[in-house]
Amino acid sequence: MNDNSTETYVDRTYGGAGIGYGDRPGIIVVDFQTAFTEAQYALGGAPLIERAVGNTARLLEVARRANVPVASCYTAYSATGRDRPYWKVQAVIEDLVHGHPATQLDSRIHDPDYDVAFCKSGASIFFQTPLVSFFAKERVDTVIVTGCVTSGCVRASAVDSFQWGFRTVVPEDCVGDHHEGPHRDNLRDIGRRYCDITDADAVIDRLEEWRGRNRQ
Amino acid sequence: MNDNSTETYVDRTYGGAGIGYGDRPGIIVVDFQTAFTEAQYALGGAPLIERAVGNTARLLEVARRANVPVASCYTAYSATGRDRPYWKVQAVIEDLVHGHPATQLDSRIHDPDYDVAFCKSGASIFFQTPLVSFFAKERVDTVIVTGCVTSGCVRASAVDSFQWGFRTVVPEDCVGDHHEGPHRDNLRDIGRRYCDITDADAVIDRLEEWRGRNRQ
Amino acid sequence: MNDNSTETYVDRTYGGAGIGYGDRPGIIVVDFQTAFTEAQYALGGAPLIERAVGNTARLLEVARRANVPVASCYTAYSATGRDRPYWKVQAVIEDLVHGHPATQLDSRIHDPDYDVAFCKSGASIFFQTPLVSFFAKERVDTVIVTGCVTSGCVRASAVDSFQWGFRTVVPEDCVGDHHEGPHRDNLRDIGRRYCDITDADAVIDRLEEWRGRNRQ
Amino acid sequence: MNDNSTETYVDRTYGGAGIGYGDRPGIIVVDFQTAFTEAQYALGGAPLIERAVGNTARLLEVARRANVPVASCYTAYSATGRDRPYWKVQAVIEDLVHGHPATQLDSRIHDPDYDVAFCKSGASIFFQTPLVSFFAKERVDTVIVTGCVTSGCVRASAVDSFQWGFRTVVPEDCVGDHHEGPHRDNLRDIGRRYCDITDADAVIDRLEEWRGRNRQ
Repeated sequence: MNDNSTETYVDRTYGGAGIGYGDRPGIIVVDFQTAFTEAQYALGGAPLIERAVGNTARLLEVARRANVPVASCYTAYSATGRDRPYWKVQAVIEDLVHGHPATQLDSRIHDPDYDVAFCKSGASIFFQTPLVSFFAKERVDTVIVTGCVTSGCVRASAVDSFQWGFRTVVPEDCVGDHHEGPHRDNLRDIGRRYCDITDADAVIDRLEEWRGRNRQ
Repeated sequence: MNDNSTETYVDRTYGGAGIGYGDRPGIIVVDFQTAFTEAQYALGGAPLIERAVGNTARLLEVARRANVPVASCYTAYSATGRDRPYWKVQAVIEDLVHGHPATQLDSRIHDPDYDVAFCKSGASIFFQTPLVSFFAKERVDTVIVTGCVTSGCVRASAVDSFQWGFRTVVPEDCVGDHHEGPHRDNLRDIGRRYCDITDADAVIDRLEEWRGRNRQ
Repeated sequence: MNDNSTETYVDRTYGGAGIGYGDRPGIIVVDFQTAFTEAQYALGGAPLIERAVGNTARLLEVARRANVPVASCYTAYSATGRDRPYWKVQAVIEDLVHGHPATQLDSRIHDPDYDVAFCKSGASIFFQTPLVSFFAKERVDTVIVTGCVTSGCVRASAVDSFQWGFRTVVPEDCVGDHHEGPHRDNLRDIGRRYCDITDADAVIDRLEEWRGRNRQ
Repeated sequence: MNDNSTETYVDRTYGGAGIGYGDRPGIIVVDFQTAFTEAQYALGGAPLIERAVGNTARLLEVARRANVPVASCYTAYSATGRDRPYWKVQAVIEDLVHGHPATQLDSRIHDPDYDVAFCKSGASIFFQTPLVSFFAKERVDTVIVTGCVTSGCVRASAVDSFQWGFRTVVPEDCVGDHHEGPHRDNLRDIGRRYCDITDADAVIDRLEEWRGRNRQ
């Protein structure tokens, strides 16, 4: 992308053949809580995140109709902060507290009657949450990554999805960041190593295909 | 660093006050196996990695004299590859196999009589290894991150160190990459959120100080 | 205890010297939710559990005055049950659902302004919860185990405390079960291998001692 | 089994309907290293363990022909012991050291060309090992538990298998202990809550059935 490093990594055998889809998808939705999706908050309202919310909402509608498991998370800590790791982001410290409105999942992407929602304490949606147990029980083999922010919790979640043995797919217009530079840099890094980068429309087509297949 | 994103993130409260050191350091040494440290291998011999090996060797000598716990890891899989996650790096698939010489820890950084060494299967040295148990038993509260590569396993390890509740310090000349662009991009991302970025000399000074204090 | 196996295990070197206390205790309180502490529920109101609630309440009062970290948990799942592992206990399936009154922590043991409380999905309070991160940040090296039930979630939590590298202490009158047989069998098994078995009064004395020491 | 607690637990809704098999089995083989399987060692050579080795060998032969994933583990620590949790079993401390012959997997149950083998540091084969990633990649949904000892590492492994969302099956003659009392007590506890208890012949029949089905 925006640097001249691609050739170096290709020479060193990075960025090989795509991973592809397996038989059972699961969707993760990282931190689409109002802290990031509403402009009134210090971390909220970036255009790339707004775009990601819209595309993820479309994708999730199809996923739920196809009975694909959906796991959402938000980040929150105790008021005392004793359980909060050493964040260097002041708004995380101030706003991500149990009971604060900034910890509510955005209603455009969350269906409380369908999705499984977790509170997480780390960067990754997989970190010390019941997510892997949920996906193992559902026999998920392919994880679709959505949410924010690309250069933080999305990156951490995509790496974990890979580490846990799943095929990992990141539709780039379903993940967002505060700035396009780090957004692209992180897609570049993970797309070389751990996952396939695609877009919302391609994933939606695939979900429709699965839905059709399972219906027969 | 090399983009114009800093202002955006500062405006959004990223990159706050440094985390600082606690009372008990522990060192992690990520993937300084010959696959990355010897030029004969596809992934081996990048100048930034060579520099990191030299600085880490100096740092570890001081750490061992101070009785600071040191955890090293290498990555390797079964010959069948059934336990290997979906890597997109061909040299990982071909060379990181149990028994292959590319899985040997570099003798410049590894002391088998002192260090605790783990085989890991993911990107992070923390991922499904006994590291946290070892550090909890040793009462470590501050993790010094060394190894390679910055835009891959080092990034994943620094994020995990943060997630597990440790104060995290990355001496930038003790971590290396194939190319300076992604090296810097990743230090930028993690230094804004999860850890303090410093250099080998500063950490060595600090280790000497701890050593002096514990001797009294 | 109530079988003739002790000699066999002693011959095989089980049950060696006690582990002892370290410098920083942390308390875990496993599943003292009303499902287990109120007689109206299928799992609730066993005498050994009632006894454990009373002793744990006394112990926690001292712990909080000594500023010792306290982590409580309850077990609950989504209404759809998709995230619930394969339990063979019907009351778990029926009552441990988000929003059900049986998931409320018992007010005798829970102080929402002090304790850190987690929802857990497995048997162990450590399983995929932020507990280890919290205790690592607090530099805990000794875990005091309380809660219910001894032959289920307490056993699993004590094993995990050991596995994570902590010195583990189980005051036997702070853990309870539906029946004395399995209660004793499990204390026997874990006391041979993983932890020290003691009682509430001994732990309270120790907490007072720590409190005195830290005050100076 | 050998106490009068069954009625109490049945009244409280424990021990409900069996869990049953899913579509993809995986086998775990816990600690069949010579420390436990050879009489020369303090922990070695108990009749129930000898019986379990024989039955597990039969079961694994069928599993490998059916291409079912097999994960074996052994327990070992560094010579310094800094990475060893607080065991109260003297023979664990003395014999389970990297390079010691007591850490070798028993050749009757281990096929190095087929099985994936891990070193573990805790009680459970799942604890901080790559097992879940391996099984997620293989799409395992049903875990068959074999190994030793029932009242220690087998119990911990069966609980973890349950927690990770797998259907869990324990053939009681494929797991062994030093004494029949704790062997039975632990099968009783876990069979009420987390898994189905069966025997080697029943699992073998099932594996043959899967093999036949996949062949067509």
